[in-house]
Amino acid sequence: MRVALFSPVWFPVPPDRYGGIEAVVHLLADGLVDAGVDVTLFASGDSRTKAELVSAFETAPSERIGESYWELQHLLPFLERRDEFDLVHDHSGLVGLTVFGLTDCPTLHTVHGPLTGDPGEVYTAVCNAVPGSGLVSLTRNQRRPCPSLPWVANVHNAIDTSRYRLERRPGDALLFLGRMSPDKGAHRAIRVAERLGRPLKIAAKCREPGEIAYFESYVEPHLNDVIEYVGEVDHDEKCALLAEAHALLVPIEWEEPFGLVMIEALASGTPTVALRRGSVPELLVDGKTAYIADDLAGMVAAVGKVEALDPGVLRAEAEARFSVERMVEGYIAAYESTMRTAVSESVPALSVAPAA
Amino acid sequence: MRVALFSPVWFPVPPDRYGGIEAVVHLLADGLVDAGVDVTLFASGDSRTKAELVSAFETAPSERIGESYWELQHLLPFLERRDEFDLVHDHSGLVGLTVFGLTDCPTLHTVHGPLTGDPGEVYTAVCNAVPGSGLVSLTRNQRRPCPSLPWVANVHNAIDTSRYRLERRPGDALLFLGRMSPDKGAHRAIRVAERLGRPLKIAAKCREPGEIAYFESYVEPHLNDVIEYVGEVDHDEKCALLAEAHALLVPIEWEEPFGLVMIEALASGTPTVALRRGSVPELLVDGKTAYIADDLAGMVAAVGKVEALDPGVLRAEAEARFSVERMVEGYIAAYESTMRTAVSESVPALSVAPAA
Repeated sequence: MRVALFSPVWFPVPPDRYGGIEAVVHLLADGLVDAGVDVTLFASGDSRTKAELVSAFETAPSERIGESYWELQHLLPFLERRDEFDLVHDHSGLVGLTVFGLTDCPTLHTVHGPLTGDPGEVYTAVCNAVPGSGLVSLTRNQRRPCPSLPWVANVHNAIDTSRYRLERRPGDALLFLGRMSPDKGAHRAIRVAERLGRPLKIAAKCREPGEIAYFESYVEPHLNDVIEYVGEVDHDEKCALLAEAHALLVPIEWEEPFGLVMIEALASGTPTVALRRGSVPELLVDGKTAYIADDLAGMVAAVGKVEALDPGVLRAEAEARFSVERMVEGYIAAYESTMRTAVSESVPALSVAPAA
Repeated sequence: MRVALFSPVWFPVPPDRYGGIEAVVHLLADGLVDAGVDVTLFASGDSRTKAELVSAFETAPSERIGESYWELQHLLPFLERRDEFDLVHDHSGLVGLTVFGLTDCPTLHTVHGPLTGDPGEVYTAVCNAVPGSGLVSLTRNQRRPCPSLPWVANVHNAIDTSRYRLERRPGDALLFLGRMSPDKGAHRAIRVAERLGRPLKIAAKCREPGEIAYFESYVEPHLNDVIEYVGEVDHDEKCALLAEAHALLVPIEWEEPFGLVMIEALASGTPTVALRRGSVPELLVDGKTAYIADDLAGMVAAVGKVEALDPGVLRAEAEARFSVERMVEGYIAAYESTMRTAVSESVPALSVAPAA
């Protein structure tokens, strides 16, 4: 099976810092190669992969993010070689889905963003305009605004569980991990910590103007000796924070398609207390691997119970449901089903002449 | 003949102020309808046209110019209806050329920008990746960096000559019309005027940061009682300036694909003194409709001779070569040739059975 795997072009694979999609594409490409699939990865030239790498650009054009002139160039090398592939698996976005869907190559596209509002309408328009491609969701909840799109599989994102360790040394402090955004809710994590009189460490990306404005208005005024903003953290710092945290708080207020931080916590044996939104109820099991609350009062109540959760059970859940091997199996099954459909559609039905 | 005509989506057709491509598409759409062609214009909903109008957006998303998420949506209504058309004529850009080129609909694409450097390489890559579409140039000179692209016609841009009048009342002052950019050369126009001791009026768009920086460094320091910046002008003000000018100066230093201002001057009977770059030698006839110089000294020398040019000859040239009717004829011929090619390629060669 020869697969053309498309990353977004804006960041290298894996990304230096940000780029959740690129991180997942990196694990998928290497995992598919390990599983014996012939993979050609289309990504910028500063990427690292076990797959064959094809690059329209030597370095990722991060500063031109979203501009069609650059996005289009990323797609062209595939179009010239499209007869070489049995399937194209796109993570690059809607232009990729449209362009690949117009070729004869069977096309699978993973939806990484939410489908609420405008994006759901645009996805619907693309799938009507260019029917025949299959979509993959990250969670069932992600599909909810658009149940009639041509879904062919639901495949959870993965992490490399070997990069996370079960080394719990919890203190009193709670942890918020993410970026500075009202959706992610660092300000709600602060309210939970304040009500409990517990320390809180906030590790979050805060670079964009919107992130900085939110930080200055809703987070910074609450900082003191115990409510602490530790800035952005790298992988090792993140692992240390997860090991030391009493619990991770996930007070999201949006339909997040997939919350990667929750499976990082699972793999570290760190209990999570989360609001029941987006992917939370699909990724976490209330009372077994986390506590899921309906409001902030529920989160406050749950924080005292987290010692009842067994870190070993959390770790086992991460390995069983969110390993690279599990994601690769899910995608290979989707590839095989897509190719079977493509073959059956290209073979005309038998026409039997009436008996003379 | 049912033609899908694609404008860029960023400005309405015709544009309120800027948008040279949208202005030409407006004249083409109405001209084709007048010539009996069944035209569907794909442009934003704030457009005015004699053609059937299909719009992905109620108003042009000008502030999102260049973003693929918006550009893609502009193309989708065509994809759903593509079987209704005999031909798609694209002015929208490279994503349009790629997407339309992947459909079965014969595709013609007018190249509006220069092909020097990167854009020429990207056009070449697109035409290799999606062969079969035909390109139209605005001038022969525009093709020079990429002579091997699949050119099918050369069609000059047009103006509505009825909106320009032969009402010459020339004074001493020279005129510069355009935008504030080193390529367009307002600073060179100033040098010509200063050497001659003649007044100069500069009418130019000056909005973008780069335009303002250029203005402040290279133009503003030279302004005085006789070297005058009159700002941006509307159509009537432009016509008045052209009527009153001793001559229009076009001191360009770039491979401009098509200089619309020169045909506006022709239609107004206003002599032009230009540098021999880009489209200049194709649009103007040295010694008959303008003077074409090799350097600024040549321009200085030519300004004194312009009274030898007959305004009636200039006007006749505009009507003969740059009218809407002429442009429409050129495109209809290109449509017919493209459709003939498409038909001949879709009909297999006759296979004659050998005599038994």
